Amino acid sequence: MIITKETLFNYEQRYRTQLVNSLNGYKSANLIGSQNKLNQSNLAIFSSVIHLGSNPPLIGFITRPNSVPRHTLENIKETGKYTINHIHSGIIEAAHQTSARYKREKSEFVETGLTEEYIDNFTAPFVKEAHLKMGLQVKEVLPITTNDTLLIVGEIELISLPETCLETDGKINLELLNTVVISGLDMYHSTKKETRLSYAKPDLPLRVI
Amino acid sequence: MIITKETLFNYEQRYRTQLVNSLNGYKSANLIGSQNKLNQSNLAIFSSVIHLGSNPPLIGFITRPNSVPRHTLENIKETGKYTINHIHSGIIEAAHQTSARYKREKSEFVETGLTEEYIDNFTAPFVKEAHLKMGLQVKEVLPITTNDTLLIVGEIELISLPETCLETDGKINLELLNTVVISGLDMYHSTKKETRLSYAKPDLPLRVI
Repeated sequence: MIITKETLFNYEQRYRTQLVNSLNGYKSANLIGSQNKLNQSNLAIFSSVIHLGSNPPLIGFITRPNSVPRHTLENIKETGKYTINHIHSGIIEAAHQTSARYKREKSEFVETGLTEEYIDNFTAPFVKEAHLKMGLQVKEVLPITTNDTLLIVGEIELISLPETCLETDGKINLELLNTVVISGLDMYHSTKKETRLSYAKPDLPLRVI
Repeated sequence: MIITKETLFNYEQRYRTQLVNSLNGYKSANLIGSQNKLNQSNLAIFSSVIHLGSNPPLIGFITRPNSVPRHTLENIKETGKYTINHIHSGIIEAAHQTSARYKREKSEFVETGLTEEYIDNFTAPFVKEAHLKMGLQVKEVLPITTNDTLLIVGEIELISLPETCLETDGKINLELLNTVVISGLDMYHSTKKETRLSYAKPDLPLRVI
């Protein structure tokens, strides 16, 4: 079936939101930890975390502006530091629960049962239960004017991961870590390897590696 | 183990690239179709396609600037139109092969065996073999100055999908479409549903829906 822009516009709002949220394919599943200058911690689930570049090592995510309370964004603006923690199959419910609108004085860590962890004097809270976690320093806050959202660009300063998941060529075995993916707004999936393919060149057949 | 920024910087380049490309978690797997004013078509794989908003329906992706030949970006600047096509398990090899550096006069459609399709007078080429595909109009090209990349923001103008994958609340069943995900630079995975959870509220337990 074909859905035009006009048809989409006329759909009921929640129906359209569910539909459009499925259109880019699967999304990464991460928890972002932060704190304000008073050391009040915050933890929030994000499905928009993307790779931006390897040298310098940069990661981005999308957020709405501060026009509504966005504690993650406020904290990042205040302190510059935040953490990104992979959601694995063992912490899906607690991770999802961080999306509830808790008041400023409540910490999602306390409310969801996830544990704050501090590593190597890095000043933002990691998720102890996560297997792969990173500490970042914000580099850019880019306004996307078309829909008044922001792209937050951060540089990776610290990575914590189990050595066993690191393969000989530097690739991380995400299946070993049980890292999950999100579809739409609220569905979580584990993954199963289909194939790994060699670097593609014109006129050369691909190899399974 | 802990990897600091300094350790990461000292890793051999390919090792670092593999590692950092695994850090955001799984990535969406899409083919972007475009053509220039002479109707020369182009098809390229992207793992950076993200949801930006539902109203208006916006999707973003990251690309390097035109300093090296980037036919997708050149075409989008020339015509404003492009398509995003989900990669499913049946077209992984052809999709991966589009990443080879073909010369301008070669079309990745011809070289990889994927088929150009034109829908409803939309002027950019879709991938006939894809199950879910969208036509977009570019709205913004945002420079990310930290590493000289670009965020391309596009509005969805047309969606083509099998009616059977559309659930009653608007969510798309991506597993029914065999849409795959990418980890690192070159590994492809299918998915298996773990759970779907209700909208989270403070002090209310989550329900599996």
